[in-house]
Amino acid sequence: MKTLSVGIIGAGRIGRLHAENILQSNNLHLKAVCDINTEHLKGSFIEKNVPIITTNVSKLLSDDDIEAVIICSSTDTHSHYIKEAAISNKHIFCEKPISKNVTETEEVLRVIKENGVKLQVGFNRRFDKHFRKVQQTVQSKQIGTPQLIKISSRDPEPPTLEYVAGAGGMFMDMTIHDFDMARYLADSEVVDISVNATNVINPQFSIYDDVDTAIITMTFENGALGVIDNSRQAVYGYDQRVEVFGDKGVVSADNENETNVKIATQETVSMDHPKYFFLERYHEAYREELNEFANAIIRNKPLLCTGNDGFQAEKLAFAAKKSKEENRTICLSELNNLFPTTDR
Amino acid sequence: MKTLSVGIIGAGRIGRLHAENILQSNNLHLKAVCDINTEHLKGSFIEKNVPIITTNVSKLLSDDDIEAVIICSSTDTHSHYIKEAAISNKHIFCEKPISKNVTETEEVLRVIKENGVKLQVGFNRRFDKHFRKVQQTVQSKQIGTPQLIKISSRDPEPPTLEYVAGAGGMFMDMTIHDFDMARYLADSEVVDISVNATNVINPQFSIYDDVDTAIITMTFENGALGVIDNSRQAVYGYDQRVEVFGDKGVVSADNENETNVKIATQETVSMDHPKYFFLERYHEAYREELNEFANAIIRNKPLLCTGNDGFQAEKLAFAAKKSKEENRTICLSELNNLFPTTDR
Amino acid sequence: MKTLSVGIIGAGRIGRLHAENILQSNNLHLKAVCDINTEHLKGSFIEKNVPIITTNVSKLLSDDDIEAVIICSSTDTHSHYIKEAAISNKHIFCEKPISKNVTETEEVLRVIKENGVKLQVGFNRRFDKHFRKVQQTVQSKQIGTPQLIKISSRDPEPPTLEYVAGAGGMFMDMTIHDFDMARYLADSEVVDISVNATNVINPQFSIYDDVDTAIITMTFENGALGVIDNSRQAVYGYDQRVEVFGDKGVVSADNENETNVKIATQETVSMDHPKYFFLERYHEAYREELNEFANAIIRNKPLLCTGNDGFQAEKLAFAAKKSKEENRTICLSELNNLFPTTDR
Amino acid sequence: MKTLSVGIIGAGRIGRLHAENILQSNNLHLKAVCDINTEHLKGSFIEKNVPIITTNVSKLLSDDDIEAVIICSSTDTHSHYIKEAAISNKHIFCEKPISKNVTETEEVLRVIKENGVKLQVGFNRRFDKHFRKVQQTVQSKQIGTPQLIKISSRDPEPPTLEYVAGAGGMFMDMTIHDFDMARYLADSEVVDISVNATNVINPQFSIYDDVDTAIITMTFENGALGVIDNSRQAVYGYDQRVEVFGDKGVVSADNENETNVKIATQETVSMDHPKYFFLERYHEAYREELNEFANAIIRNKPLLCTGNDGFQAEKLAFAAKKSKEENRTICLSELNNLFPTTDR
Repeated sequence: MKTLSVGIIGAGRIGRLHAENILQSNNLHLKAVCDINTEHLKGSFIEKNVPIITTNVSKLLSDDDIEAVIICSSTDTHSHYIKEAAISNKHIFCEKPISKNVTETEEVLRVIKENGVKLQVGFNRRFDKHFRKVQQTVQSKQIGTPQLIKISSRDPEPPTLEYVAGAGGMFMDMTIHDFDMARYLADSEVVDISVNATNVINPQFSIYDDVDTAIITMTFENGALGVIDNSRQAVYGYDQRVEVFGDKGVVSADNENETNVKIATQETVSMDHPKYFFLERYHEAYREELNEFANAIIRNKPLLCTGNDGFQAEKLAFAAKKSKEENRTICLSELNNLFPTTDR
Repeated sequence: MKTLSVGIIGAGRIGRLHAENILQSNNLHLKAVCDINTEHLKGSFIEKNVPIITTNVSKLLSDDDIEAVIICSSTDTHSHYIKEAAISNKHIFCEKPISKNVTETEEVLRVIKENGVKLQVGFNRRFDKHFRKVQQTVQSKQIGTPQLIKISSRDPEPPTLEYVAGAGGMFMDMTIHDFDMARYLADSEVVDISVNATNVINPQFSIYDDVDTAIITMTFENGALGVIDNSRQAVYGYDQRVEVFGDKGVVSADNENETNVKIATQETVSMDHPKYFFLERYHEAYREELNEFANAIIRNKPLLCTGNDGFQAEKLAFAAKKSKEENRTICLSELNNLFPTTDR
Repeated sequence: MKTLSVGIIGAGRIGRLHAENILQSNNLHLKAVCDINTEHLKGSFIEKNVPIITTNVSKLLSDDDIEAVIICSSTDTHSHYIKEAAISNKHIFCEKPISKNVTETEEVLRVIKENGVKLQVGFNRRFDKHFRKVQQTVQSKQIGTPQLIKISSRDPEPPTLEYVAGAGGMFMDMTIHDFDMARYLADSEVVDISVNATNVINPQFSIYDDVDTAIITMTFENGALGVIDNSRQAVYGYDQRVEVFGDKGVVSADNENETNVKIATQETVSMDHPKYFFLERYHEAYREELNEFANAIIRNKPLLCTGNDGFQAEKLAFAAKKSKEENRTICLSELNNLFPTTDR
Repeated sequence: MKTLSVGIIGAGRIGRLHAENILQSNNLHLKAVCDINTEHLKGSFIEKNVPIITTNVSKLLSDDDIEAVIICSSTDTHSHYIKEAAISNKHIFCEKPISKNVTETEEVLRVIKENGVKLQVGFNRRFDKHFRKVQQTVQSKQIGTPQLIKISSRDPEPPTLEYVAGAGGMFMDMTIHDFDMARYLADSEVVDISVNATNVINPQFSIYDDVDTAIITMTFENGALGVIDNSRQAVYGYDQRVEVFGDKGVVSADNENETNVKIATQETVSMDHPKYFFLERYHEAYREELNEFANAIIRNKPLLCTGNDGFQAEKLAFAAKKSKEENRTICLSELNNLFPTTDR
C-alpha cells in the first residue's frame, strides 16, 4: 500500500494529536514536524519517530519527499502557511477556519486554485461514524426530502477569556462546525440565517462583544429549515446531536456515552455521561479525516471536505454575526458583492 | 369524597372523550350533555349513563345541580358559551383556544373576572406525566437557571383542507399548545418571538395563507432562549419531546412508545413507534386535567392552567403570525396597546 | 354493546381493584360484591355503585342476572368457590393459583368440565401490551424457531413473614406467573425443570423452608431452553423483562418506567425507575384481562388463559420445589402418575 | 516512557491483530514475529516494521532484548511454548485457553511458578470498558452484595465443522470467556455448576458430541447465583451483555452498537446492530490488554488476569462438560483430586 508522506506545521495540542495518529496510521508517513519552539517535544514519542523536528518551516516546504502538509498552527497563521505550501506544490490539510476573515479566505482559495493543489479543511465531524450514517441515510432518500435539520452542539466548558479575545467570536470559532454539519446533512446551501444569541455563561465575554448561548435558524435552497442550538457550557459533557426530518421519516444521532453501563439503586437509575469533549468524542474521526485525506490524494479522488466547504461555513459565521448585530434575518445573497467567490 | 357535578357542551370527538372519562372518574359526576344534534349518542354508553341529554343549552345552564361546564363545542362558539356559563355562575373548563381573536379572549376574561368563576383552558399537555416531571425538575432548580428551552411538536398527519380553512392558522391551532408548554417549562413570559415557517407538506394550505412546517425562536423574561419546531406531518407518528437546558444540567422528555418491545433480526433492529396521536399519547393527561380541575374547584385551590394561560398563548400565536408576515422579530411589548390585559 | 353481568367474591385489595375496573368498563356490569366482612366498603365508590353488597355468597350465586363470578378471596377458598360457582352455572374468573395443591386443582378442573362453564385464571401478565407483543412476534415466526426463553422477574420488596407462612412457597406464589409466561411465550410445554435457589434476603424465610432468590432452568417440548431469574427484593423497583431468542432473531420487552424523563448534571445522568409494583405496572393489564374475559364469554370465543394454564403452572411450581429439595432435574413426565390430568 | 520489547509466536488472525496493535502502541516494541510459515507476511505492514521475521522460535527465545512473548499459535501448542518461554526467562501473554486439558494446564502453571515469570491469559473481555465499569461498580459496593450474576454471550455465526472438531467443545472454546467473566464480576469462586445444553443450530456438531446452545447455572462461594446463556449463532450480531444484581441495586452493560443512529419511518423505527463480532466489539480491549500487560511488567505490578484465572476457567469448562454428560450438578470440590492445584 502506498503511503502519503507529510509534514506537520504547528505542534500544539491538535498538532501532536495528528502526529500521533499519523505515526499509528497505515497510509501516512510523518517525515517532519515544525513548530516555532520544539522544546516541548524533547524525549517524546513524536521526537523518537519523526525524522525531522525543526523550527524552520522552509526545511519542510523544500523537502521533495513531503507531498502534503498538515497545518495546525494558530489560526492567524493559517492563510500564510496555506499559500506558502500551495506555492511549494504541497497538498494541504488545514484546521478550521482557513481564516477569521472571509475575504482573506477567498484569496487563499484563489492561490490554491492557481497552484492546482488540494485543500481539505478540518471539519472532523464529517468523519464521525454517527453523523456520517445520518448523512448517508439522507442521501439514500430513506427519509425522503429533508424538511427540518436540527443540530445541538454544546461544549462541556467555556474557553478562557484570553481564548475568547482572539477567537473571532463564537460563530466563527465554535458554530462554524455546526454550519458545516448543516450544509453536509442538508446537501444544500443556506439561503438566509437568523440568530437569537445571548451571553449568560460568562458575563466577561461581553467585553469582546461575544455570546455564549445561541439559537440559529436557517433556510436552505432545497426548502428545508434548519436550527442550531449552541452553548459554551454543558456541565454534563459534550452534547453533539443531529436530526434530519423529512417527508418519509426522521434520522437522528444521539451522543456517544463513556460506557453503556446502567446502575439502578433505590435512589436513582443512572447511566454514563457523554464522552467528555472533542478529543474523546471525535477520537476516531480525527484518525479518519487524515486517512481519507491520504486516500483522496494517493488515488486522486475528490476530497470529502474542501476549501470551499471552509469558505461557505465562514460566510455563514459572518452572516450569523451580522444577524445578531442587526437583529434581522440575513439573506446570504446580500453578501455576494462582499464575497464574490461562487466556486463550489 | 365529594364529586363535582358537571355538564358538557358539545359532544363531538373530544366531548365524548371527556364524557367517557368523567363517567369513569371518581370525583366528577356527569349530569348533562348538550349538543346541537344528539342523534349520534343514541344507544351509546353516554346516553345510558347521563341523566340529561339535550339540544337545549339553557337546560344545562339553569340546572342548579350543575356546578361546572365542560365546553367542547366548535371554537367559534367557545367565547359565547364561556360568557353564558360565567353569567350562570358555573365554573368552566374550555378546550383551547378560548377564541381565535385575542381581543375577544380579553373580553371573555373580563366576564370571567366579573362573575368570580374559575376558568381552566384545555392545555392537556401540562398534565402529561413526562412533561410534568420536566417542569417539576426545572422548578426544583436541579438544572439551575434555564438557558435553552426546546420543544419538538409534530403531528402524524396533516388536517384536511376544510379544517385548515377554519382553524385560524397553524400557530393558533397547533403551536398554541407548544407556546403554552414553553411558558409552563420556562416559568417566564416571552419577550420576543421570531418565526421561520414554510409550506412543504400540502401546497393547498397556502390558499389559506397557512404554513405546515416552522421553527419558532423566543426570548424569555428570565433570559432563556426557546425554540419550537413544528410539522403537520411526521409519518412515523406523534412526535412530542421537550428539553430544558440550564447552567447546572439538562432535563428532557422523550416520546412514549406503543410498547417497549425490541426486535433484532439479521436485517434490522426495530422498536415500536411513538403512540399514534394525541388521543393515544395524552389518554391519561385528558383524565388528569379534568381530575385536577374538579379537585381545584372542590377544594377551592388555584387551577394549574388558567384563562390567562390561554390568553398568553393566543397572544404568542398572534405574534408568531405577525412575525411570519412581516419577516421580523416581534417584541411582545409591541402588542400592549392592542391587547392591554396584563392580569396574570 | 352487550355487557356481562358479574359478581365479585372477595373484596380485599385485588377484589376492590377489579371492582373499580369493572365499574369503569364498558362491557361488564357489577351486580354484586360479597365478602365475609363488608364494613370496609361503607361509603366507598363501590358501595355507591354496586346494587348488592353482601356477606352471603349464595345471594350472589343464586342471582340469575349474574352470569359470571370473579373470585378474589383468599387462596385457600378458591377451589371451594370455583366449584360452587360451576355448580351454579356461572362462568368464573379466579385469581391465581386455583389452589396450592395440584391434586385439588385437578379436581376443580373436573368440576368445571362437568358443568360446562368457562374458567379463566388471573395470569394478568398475558394481557400486558409489551409481553403480548413479544408473544405475537414469536407466533408470527419473525424470530424463527425459539431457542432460548429468558424471564427476569423480581419484586421490589419481599412479603411479610406472615404472608410467606401461608403462601405455599415462592414458586407457587410468585414464580407461578413466570411459569405461565414461559409457556405463553414458548407456546410449548415444559419437559424438565432444574432449580438453583437460595435464601439471601430475609433469613427468616427459611423457617418456612422457603427461598427468595432463584434461577430456574427448563427444557421445552419444542427444543427450546428457558431460564427464569427471581428475586423477592429488587430495591430499584419491579423488574419484569422477557426475551425470546430464535434462529432468525430475538425479541425482548424492557421495563415500563414511571416516565421517559432523563436528567443530566455534572454528577450524574439519571432516568426514572421502573413502575413500582404490579398494581402500577399491570394497571392496564388488569383491565384488559377482565375485558377479554367478558368478550370471550359474550361472543362464546376461547379464553386467552384457561384453567389448564393454571394447572400447568402449578405443576411447574410443584416440580420446581421438588427439584430444589432433591437437587436434581425433574422431568415433568415423572409427575404423570401423581397428576394424571392431561387435558390441555 | 519505558517500552516492553516483545516477540510474537504465531501470526494468524489474532497474532497479526496483536502485531498491528503493538506497532501502534506507545509502551510496547515488537522485535520479532515467528510463525511456521511467514510467506503471508511478505510486503505487509508487519514485515516492514518488525526487525525479525522468522520461522525459528529459538531465534526469538534466545534474543536477550526480548523481555516477553505473546503466544498466538494454535491452542495445541500453547503449553509447549509457554514452558519454553518460561525456561528462557520471558514473561508471557498467551491466548486462551492455556490448554484444553486441565491437568496439562496445571503442569504449565508449575513451570511458570518455578521460573518466576509472569503469565497473562488472553481474557480480553476483562479489558472492555463496559465490563470493567460493571466490575468496578460491584467492587465499590454500590449495588451491595451480589446475589445474581447474569451473562448473555452469543456469537453471530457458528464456527465451521472443522473448527468444532478441534476446539475441545463449546464450553472450553467459547464459554470459557464467560466463566472468566463470571468469576471476574462475582469476585468469588464457583462452588457448583449445572448445565442445560442442546444442539439446535448445526446438527453436525453432534458428531463431535458438541452443543451450540446452553444455559449454565452456578453457585458462588459468596452465596450469589450465576447464569450464562450461550448461543453459537445470533443472526443479529454479537450479543455480549452482563448484569450483576445485589441487595442495594443492579448494574448492567448493554451491547455496543455500530452507531447511535435511529431511523423512524412509517413502516419501522430502527437502530443499528451490535458491533459484528469480537474483532469489532473488543477492538479497544485487545489494545488495552497488551497495554496493561506491558504496564504490569514494566512497573512490576500484579497482572489483571493471571495463569490461575486461565486454570479456574478451564476447570469450569471441564465441570460444565461433565454436568452435561452426567445430567447433574457438579460440585467443584469433586474435582479437587483430579486437579489439586489450589494456588490462586
